[in-house]
Amino acid sequence: MTDLRPIAVDAMGGDRAPGEIVAGARRAAEELGLPVLLVGRPDEMGDTGGLEVLAASEVIAMEADPGQSVRRMKDSSLVRAAEAVRDGRASAMVSAGNTGATMASALLRMGRIRGVARPAIATPIPSPGANVPTILLDAGANAECQPEWLVQFAQMGAVLGRERYGVDAPRVGLLSIGEEPGKGDPLRKTTYPLLADPGWAAGCGATFVGNVEGRDLMSDDVDVVVTDGFTGNVALKTLEGGLRSLVGAIVATFDTDAASRAAADALMPALLPLYAQLDPDGTGGAMLLGVDGVCIISHGSSSATAVVNACRVAADMVTTGLVGHLGTGLVPV
Amino acid sequence: MTDLRPIAVDAMGGDRAPGEIVAGARRAAEELGLPVLLVGRPDEMGDTGGLEVLAASEVIAMEADPGQSVRRMKDSSLVRAAEAVRDGRASAMVSAGNTGATMASALLRMGRIRGVARPAIATPIPSPGANVPTILLDAGANAECQPEWLVQFAQMGAVLGRERYGVDAPRVGLLSIGEEPGKGDPLRKTTYPLLADPGWAAGCGATFVGNVEGRDLMSDDVDVVVTDGFTGNVALKTLEGGLRSLVGAIVATFDTDAASRAAADALMPALLPLYAQLDPDGTGGAMLLGVDGVCIISHGSSSATAVVNACRVAADMVTTGLVGHLGTGLVPV
Repeated sequence: MTDLRPIAVDAMGGDRAPGEIVAGARRAAEELGLPVLLVGRPDEMGDTGGLEVLAASEVIAMEADPGQSVRRMKDSSLVRAAEAVRDGRASAMVSAGNTGATMASALLRMGRIRGVARPAIATPIPSPGANVPTILLDAGANAECQPEWLVQFAQMGAVLGRERYGVDAPRVGLLSIGEEPGKGDPLRKTTYPLLADPGWAAGCGATFVGNVEGRDLMSDDVDVVVTDGFTGNVALKTLEGGLRSLVGAIVATFDTDAASRAAADALMPALLPLYAQLDPDGTGGAMLLGVDGVCIISHGSSSATAVVNACRVAADMVTTGLVGHLGTGLVPV
Repeated sequence: MTDLRPIAVDAMGGDRAPGEIVAGARRAAEELGLPVLLVGRPDEMGDTGGLEVLAASEVIAMEADPGQSVRRMKDSSLVRAAEAVRDGRASAMVSAGNTGATMASALLRMGRIRGVARPAIATPIPSPGANVPTILLDAGANAECQPEWLVQFAQMGAVLGRERYGVDAPRVGLLSIGEEPGKGDPLRKTTYPLLADPGWAAGCGATFVGNVEGRDLMSDDVDVVVTDGFTGNVALKTLEGGLRSLVGAIVATFDTDAASRAAADALMPALLPLYAQLDPDGTGGAMLLGVDGVCIISHGSSSATAVVNACRVAADMVTTGLVGHLGTGLVPV
């Protein structure tokens, strides 16, 4: 990886920035040997361990209006990180900050892959027992979608499944409410026949498996689940909240009395691999597909470990040339 | 409950019909003292234990087209059950069969409560640690919704929270993707100001807590979550699938070796109450709100226990006069 240009890490973005972000960037450099460019306010970063720094004086708050912030705060860490990718100083960007502003920065500074109507957020959903996650997209970039965009999401998701997760012929499903072709709202009813015509998959080797339901997200029955960004974000957060709630309740039972605590200790070796698979810090975050560059969107509460994994995913995407492959998958339909 | 008219139970609906359904109906009569009217093919019901039977010669299949089936199969168990409520022979109907056909039967035979634009499916979501579930509606009746319908769902959900779950001033949230008022798609953006004006809550004593997200569904932060039937059904099935997947993975770790099995056995007393709270058979199913009668929609795989609980919920709704209260909550806005 000696000729990999650095990964621009937004040091100021995220609930635990800059401490955990800088710590993660340092670990990515030390443990994975990745070149990292920290973007933000140098005097707030603490000890950067000798990492390269790109100074940016402004910080877009987690709850700030994305469009306005990106237009007005031209010296923000997010805008500067995206510019670093555009200008070739960095090979990819990673941020745990304001998701909307991350998308807007990447879109406005890097532009779109030729032919892409709208970028989409692709989120890997772990599926216990399966080797690869289910890819959900759009997980929140576009609250309102056209049927043709969903077809492009299918193409990009399938390329991601093939190139990043090694799935030869990704099975693509349309998220709906009932498996029969006619089920769902008008967007699903219009999108279904577009996906049922195999022409769209000519560039990505995917197969359409029809409508899937929310319960299929954590299953091994489908590789790529396509939906609009509103539904996708609701599904993703519902899943995250439900799993967290259940794990919390189970952990509470483990602490009921001394016998429970001893029993829970005995189970830990068996439970830890499952925990590791479900830990959101382990996936490296979501990927913004369709912009002309690699952009990783980590969750807001990212720890140093999450940043390490985000940098690893970013480097993988760069070295495997994912952005170029995405363009190849975009057969017009 | 001596003057309660019988609860019409669709003996033919559900993956485990008629065996588990009839068994559940018998238990509802024996254990809860409820009058039950079994609706369906008498010669397929087996031993009905002396329960009253309403003969119906047709069965609407689980995957049949709801509208067509209900129009054509006038002697189906679902249509006959709904007619029994309309005609006063039964006080409520319960079915674990085709959800769409259950809704269509209830709507076409019972009609709507005066002023209701569209009935909605209200599903209780258990929240570990909380005394009452979160009510999600619409969980699948209307794939496409108008903003005004969502306001009515808020009113009906709040009445349900108050009358059935004893929540004095139900907190109502609008399911969206981000908590700020401007977040979401056009439906959410148009609905938000309607709910922010407190006039709608005059008849139900609710308060609007703003946008909520998918992760709030299993929390104690909101009592009623309002959404369109497409999003609601996706969220519900995503939650069900995710919890089932996680529980399955955890149970698999319990069986890793003899030590794990022993530890799991020791934990069971602490885990069972949680399991009972999350068991879908324990909630009694979803409620179709807005039709002029009590209609309980149990999940397709309902066991006898699920039917017992559905009959219990139906009887509660009848004796507390929920349908009348729902009408009172419908202040025009």
